[in-house]
Amino acid sequence: MEDPTGNPENLVFPEREMLSVDETKQFIEERKYFDLKNLLADSLAPDIVEIIESLDISEQVIVFRLLSKETAAEVFSLLDHDAQEELLANFGEERVKAIFEEMDPDDLTELFDELPDKVVRQLVRLLPPAERSMVNRFMGYPEDSAGRLMTPEFIKLRQHISADEAIAKIRRIGLDKETIYYSYVVDEKGKLIGTVSLKDLLLAPPDRKIEDIMTTNFVYAHTHDDQEEVAGLLAKYDLTALPVVDHDQRLVGIITIDDVVDVITEEATEDIHKMAGMEAPIDSYFGTGFLMLGRKRVLWLVVLLVLSYLSSVVLKHYSDILQIVVPLAFFIPMLTGTCGNTGMQSATLIIRGLATGEVELKDFFRVLSREILMGLFLGIVLGLLSFIRARFVDINPFIGIAVGIAVFISVIAANMIGAILPLLLKKLKIDPAVSAGPFITTIVDVMSLILYFEIAQVVFNLR
Amino acid sequence: MEDPTGNPENLVFPEREMLSVDETKQFIEERKYFDLKNLLADSLAPDIVEIIESLDISEQVIVFRLLSKETAAEVFSLLDHDAQEELLANFGEERVKAIFEEMDPDDLTELFDELPDKVVRQLVRLLPPAERSMVNRFMGYPEDSAGRLMTPEFIKLRQHISADEAIAKIRRIGLDKETIYYSYVVDEKGKLIGTVSLKDLLLAPPDRKIEDIMTTNFVYAHTHDDQEEVAGLLAKYDLTALPVVDHDQRLVGIITIDDVVDVITEEATEDIHKMAGMEAPIDSYFGTGFLMLGRKRVLWLVVLLVLSYLSSVVLKHYSDILQIVVPLAFFIPMLTGTCGNTGMQSATLIIRGLATGEVELKDFFRVLSREILMGLFLGIVLGLLSFIRARFVDINPFIGIAVGIAVFISVIAANMIGAILPLLLKKLKIDPAVSAGPFITTIVDVMSLILYFEIAQVVFNLR
Repeated sequence: MEDPTGNPENLVFPEREMLSVDETKQFIEERKYFDLKNLLADSLAPDIVEIIESLDISEQVIVFRLLSKETAAEVFSLLDHDAQEELLANFGEERVKAIFEEMDPDDLTELFDELPDKVVRQLVRLLPPAERSMVNRFMGYPEDSAGRLMTPEFIKLRQHISADEAIAKIRRIGLDKETIYYSYVVDEKGKLIGTVSLKDLLLAPPDRKIEDIMTTNFVYAHTHDDQEEVAGLLAKYDLTALPVVDHDQRLVGIITIDDVVDVITEEATEDIHKMAGMEAPIDSYFGTGFLMLGRKRVLWLVVLLVLSYLSSVVLKHYSDILQIVVPLAFFIPMLTGTCGNTGMQSATLIIRGLATGEVELKDFFRVLSREILMGLFLGIVLGLLSFIRARFVDINPFIGIAVGIAVFISVIAANMIGAILPLLLKKLKIDPAVSAGPFITTIVDVMSLILYFEIAQVVFNLR
Repeated sequence: MEDPTGNPENLVFPEREMLSVDETKQFIEERKYFDLKNLLADSLAPDIVEIIESLDISEQVIVFRLLSKETAAEVFSLLDHDAQEELLANFGEERVKAIFEEMDPDDLTELFDELPDKVVRQLVRLLPPAERSMVNRFMGYPEDSAGRLMTPEFIKLRQHISADEAIAKIRRIGLDKETIYYSYVVDEKGKLIGTVSLKDLLLAPPDRKIEDIMTTNFVYAHTHDDQEEVAGLLAKYDLTALPVVDHDQRLVGIITIDDVVDVITEEATEDIHKMAGMEAPIDSYFGTGFLMLGRKRVLWLVVLLVLSYLSSVVLKHYSDILQIVVPLAFFIPMLTGTCGNTGMQSATLIIRGLATGEVELKDFFRVLSREILMGLFLGIVLGLLSFIRARFVDINPFIGIAVGIAVFISVIAANMIGAILPLLLKKLKIDPAVSAGPFITTIVDVMSLILYFEIAQVVFNLR
């Protein structure tokens, strides 16, 4: 199928026939359940999720009835927590059981985390005992830890079997495993001693022993490691799966790259929200309730408003000079704005560098020396421009001089504060993303205003 | 290995023995090249990269000489562009050839993209003819497109062979392929007609034909699709590899999830930098030259400074009332700050929602109605607080009234502008991430100042 426009939006899936919401609604209305069932069987789970999100709850329940057990569990896992909760309330007990049986323990744990305790207690009852104890163990790991992210469905091998025996085992048990492309070698105590890829197994001589094929210099995580670190390991070492061990070094699960893709997106979202002065995590814009979102937003706005008390106090302190030289007030937004923007830039560079691992605490002096130079450069450009700009608004050249010098010095300082504060917070084990919005603007506002009026006093000889 | 502290930093790799920079330097100094070579052979490429980054160029060249051809190419691909360029200048022609031969075409293309044209012309000459034409074709795709990201090293199967024949073929040719876990089925014209996983091949009866095993409802991309969209597809459909076809639907490459992980991180970084008012992309903090980084930072700072001319004009316009009621100036930073923060919050929520695909243009009215309510809530809380806060600084209650009302109305408006502007820019096909910093603060500053002084004129009866 040619597309001469080269427009990417036209190019994606030009011929994948997808069931639409309207078609689905029509099939349901006309009770053509058999046809709908066949069409759903040909659809991919993420596409079914998009359809379900636009259906009424009664239609949703019908669609679920028409899905295979596996697809039903997959689709259910991909829905918003709100949608999941509503469906659970509308499903019969048998259907809930069937879906839970097919769901991965990590998805179940995530679901139970979001539901009210009372509901969870009722639901856990519906699980088969083995899965119940699994979910309970998963829920014992800290939120956002490797333990929560992992799946226990991996392939375990012993070191003494041959490549061909291993492949036979994988063919036998592979169907239910999260990945068959990596197998994990454990000793008699369950301790992880090596990893082996299906590629290596297939390409090795059939009678070669696992212990001679496996990699012993493998990367792994512990159950309590933070998911962001885990994501970093998978990204850094280009892995598609990472084994997770407990405190005794026993293999308890694996984390696959597809789960990590979601983590990376989530963590970036969290940082972005924090940097804009919001309490994180806000998992989703529409999925977060109005009151919850309001609370997460208003908190920092109030803190910042209260902190800006300081800038008012500073201005009040200089009210005499402001009274005499009113035009000084014209440049307050420009001064605080320019310095705030500069500090925000350097803070953002360092915060993001810390998040991606490029900048580390040991780079402190490297950052310092770089930002001293950068501050000088920005200070000169912006100071000069402010001076010129002030001359356009007000004919008094002394105001321009006060503005220019204040911007020059404040920009250098703001740039430095923006770069150093995230590193200091990181050192104090506080999330540096929080520093960008609140602290920097407040500090920079107060500092630049004091400088501005002190310089003005000198320039206008008002001391 | 137990770790009772539960501190994740202690838990990662407690027993992986890694070669250190100091050890490497010492081996080189003592000319113990054989020992170093053995230790390097046991190291993972990303760990070698970290060592190399701390070595002098002459030491770097020695380390490269001790690496296997494959590892050398892998390590080289992972280095910064600056480091790559320096190494190329210090390598002999033979070494460059050896490394280029082992590098993936997508990595080569990326490298050539960053180097000066003159250098590229010399280097392309060193490639074997087949690879030269491949790189030239790759460089014909737009930057950040699927064509640039893909690798041509995938397994191609015909539909008429059996599962066992396919497995035998994979065993034979799999060693050089980017993944053996997915194979792609093409017809006689090279058109992609299906995909089949190694899992399905292994679990199918050995004589079953590929056409009866393959998935025909597969997801794929076109060479010109944007890498961000491609990343979205892999994430949405939980894929580990995505086939890429040309305009004639012929299979030309695959994109694997590990490349996409980098894209997701890069795109998030780009958005974060843009939102902080910097020109993107800034691929790395230390890796970007001082002048380049300075240029990317100063541009928007200058634009914002020039735009803040408007706020000065507004203030000048109201200089009479400012002269009479000087305390009005005390609250300017609080007013513009609070409104700017509010607008930044709603803008950030929508920009990130658009980036992750949760918010779409069709949600315009849903966003609008949500943010009207949210603006009212925030306006009431912040307006009241500003009124109270103003009373603490200045005893004149009329100023508090003017501040409170101005904050109340401006917060509602700022919140709305922040939410709508990204959607409008998206509609106009401008990157919405650009709107957060520059436009919103400027608009909000001017608007809130006008409101403030208009209200003050009424309250103080100064018209």
